[in-house]
Amino acid sequence: MSIEISQQQTVERLRELDDILVLMHKNPDGDTLGSGYALCEAMRRMGKRINAWCDSPIPNRFEYLVQDYKDLDFTPSVLISVDVADQMLLGEPYRNKTIDLAIDHHPSNTGFAQYLYCKPDSSSNCEIMTGIIDQLPVEIDLYIATCLYTGITTDTGCFRYTNTTSQSLRMAARMMDIGVESGMLNRQLFEMKTRGRVELEQLAMSGIEYSHKGRIAFMTITRDMLRSTQVDPADIEGITAMPRNIEGVEVGVTLRELDNGNYKISLRTVRTNAAQICAAFGGGGHKRAAGFECSGTLFDIKVAIVSEIEKVL
Amino acid sequence: MSIEISQQQTVERLRELDDILVLMHKNPDGDTLGSGYALCEAMRRMGKRINAWCDSPIPNRFEYLVQDYKDLDFTPSVLISVDVADQMLLGEPYRNKTIDLAIDHHPSNTGFAQYLYCKPDSSSNCEIMTGIIDQLPVEIDLYIATCLYTGITTDTGCFRYTNTTSQSLRMAARMMDIGVESGMLNRQLFEMKTRGRVELEQLAMSGIEYSHKGRIAFMTITRDMLRSTQVDPADIEGITAMPRNIEGVEVGVTLRELDNGNYKISLRTVRTNAAQICAAFGGGGHKRAAGFECSGTLFDIKVAIVSEIEKVL
Repeated sequence: MSIEISQQQTVERLRELDDILVLMHKNPDGDTLGSGYALCEAMRRMGKRINAWCDSPIPNRFEYLVQDYKDLDFTPSVLISVDVADQMLLGEPYRNKTIDLAIDHHPSNTGFAQYLYCKPDSSSNCEIMTGIIDQLPVEIDLYIATCLYTGITTDTGCFRYTNTTSQSLRMAARMMDIGVESGMLNRQLFEMKTRGRVELEQLAMSGIEYSHKGRIAFMTITRDMLRSTQVDPADIEGITAMPRNIEGVEVGVTLRELDNGNYKISLRTVRTNAAQICAAFGGGGHKRAAGFECSGTLFDIKVAIVSEIEKVL
Repeated sequence: MSIEISQQQTVERLRELDDILVLMHKNPDGDTLGSGYALCEAMRRMGKRINAWCDSPIPNRFEYLVQDYKDLDFTPSVLISVDVADQMLLGEPYRNKTIDLAIDHHPSNTGFAQYLYCKPDSSSNCEIMTGIIDQLPVEIDLYIATCLYTGITTDTGCFRYTNTTSQSLRMAARMMDIGVESGMLNRQLFEMKTRGRVELEQLAMSGIEYSHKGRIAFMTITRDMLRSTQVDPADIEGITAMPRNIEGVEVGVTLRELDNGNYKISLRTVRTNAAQICAAFGGGGHKRAAGFECSGTLFDIKVAIVSEIEKVL
């Protein structure tokens, strides 16, 4: 298990360390990328050799965050993970390496790193990172502010989810005052959909299935649907929120067929503990948003999920 | 034309006036209701006889705002409109009455009231109202905060639209600190959809038409669609944002058939001035969201709109 440390201890370690690789989780979202690149940039300003790494391609909509520090040539001696709940999410090259420090906000963090700074009451890891960077001798400029805003807005569903706090809003306001154009960013992150994505949503929603008098809704996204609509699986973020948004639904379940034939299951809940339900399948996440991966037939998977949901509904 | 007055002058007038009816616009949204009920409640705390009135039924999702001051029995001698750009939007009983004061944020306000306090740079009328109530001898409690938050969040599309400022976020944060449960409210206001609404969106989106290489998108909602999905026209707020959200679309047009056979046209734009396009048809609104009502065949209406859009695209 990790040794849990405070913000001040985290800041002290960051000041001391050098030759760092920041590790973001596979299938990256705005929060892992935002907190990773913000940390990288802040530490570079302090003269550190540091770079960021992710085992998956970066989705197009987050391209504005990517810094390619090509001038860098160093062998990392320190590994820091950001927004990573489980070492498996780092991908092949780092799943068995020693991780020196994890900065995270997932209550389900498995304690894989030597040191852990975790604040589960933060809606995003970028909120935690804002607090850290404020203690470093670095000013938050437009680029760092854009990174931090991205994580705050994506992990709160643009300030819509129940995890949003007044602190989330105030931090976002601060980033806007630094110059972040929230309207254009949010359009890109939340509103804009390709025609293919619109078609995919229609296909998926037209096949929605209900259970328990409409309290559970299942939406399935097959490889065929992705193929026929030409949608990249990296570009379906947000689609998992759709079943939960139907009146009466308390648990929305999205089942996405993966290339290897397995299914990636995403749960979104109104009141019930999503992380608890997913833990029964070896998964994890947050109270209202969690997931896991499994194999089997669609029908069997759905039956198994329903029986776990029944225990808590 | 109205005499334009400042915040301080508005506050002074409010302190002096009594026996007031606050008028909200027809087909009310969260901002007219939020600013209207907030003003009402604040003034009641000051011992004033005041009530609020709207010519349309209040949509279910805003029921938590409605205060029915049944104890009141007075004949209003003063009329104050909130979030009302044009006197026609007050509905039959008040479209020819003398309006003493208009508190508004629409740049297209027609100057129908004797006195006007208008701040077009405010994303919502509730932002303006917050500033006013702060100058009155009233503390913002949970109910007033809920009213104000409702207008701020609905008029910014939950802080997503380009009109959102850091001030909008900070005011919302303040209301959350007073106790507003933003997560549950936003779910009710933005996320939750009836099954009928989901079906209606599918029907409408499946018939979407493009023009000008996908830069203009038309979505039509017919009376038949509303009937078959059993959706109340009062519950389709937000649907007009859908065509603009498709990649490449710069002007999204929603044409909704009304009971009298006319069409209500809603424009949502990315960069072009929606209010300017709608002004050509006698309508108005904001830069990125405006509308008008007209008669004619669907085809003729669309041709006329395209020709107006061409002038500015």
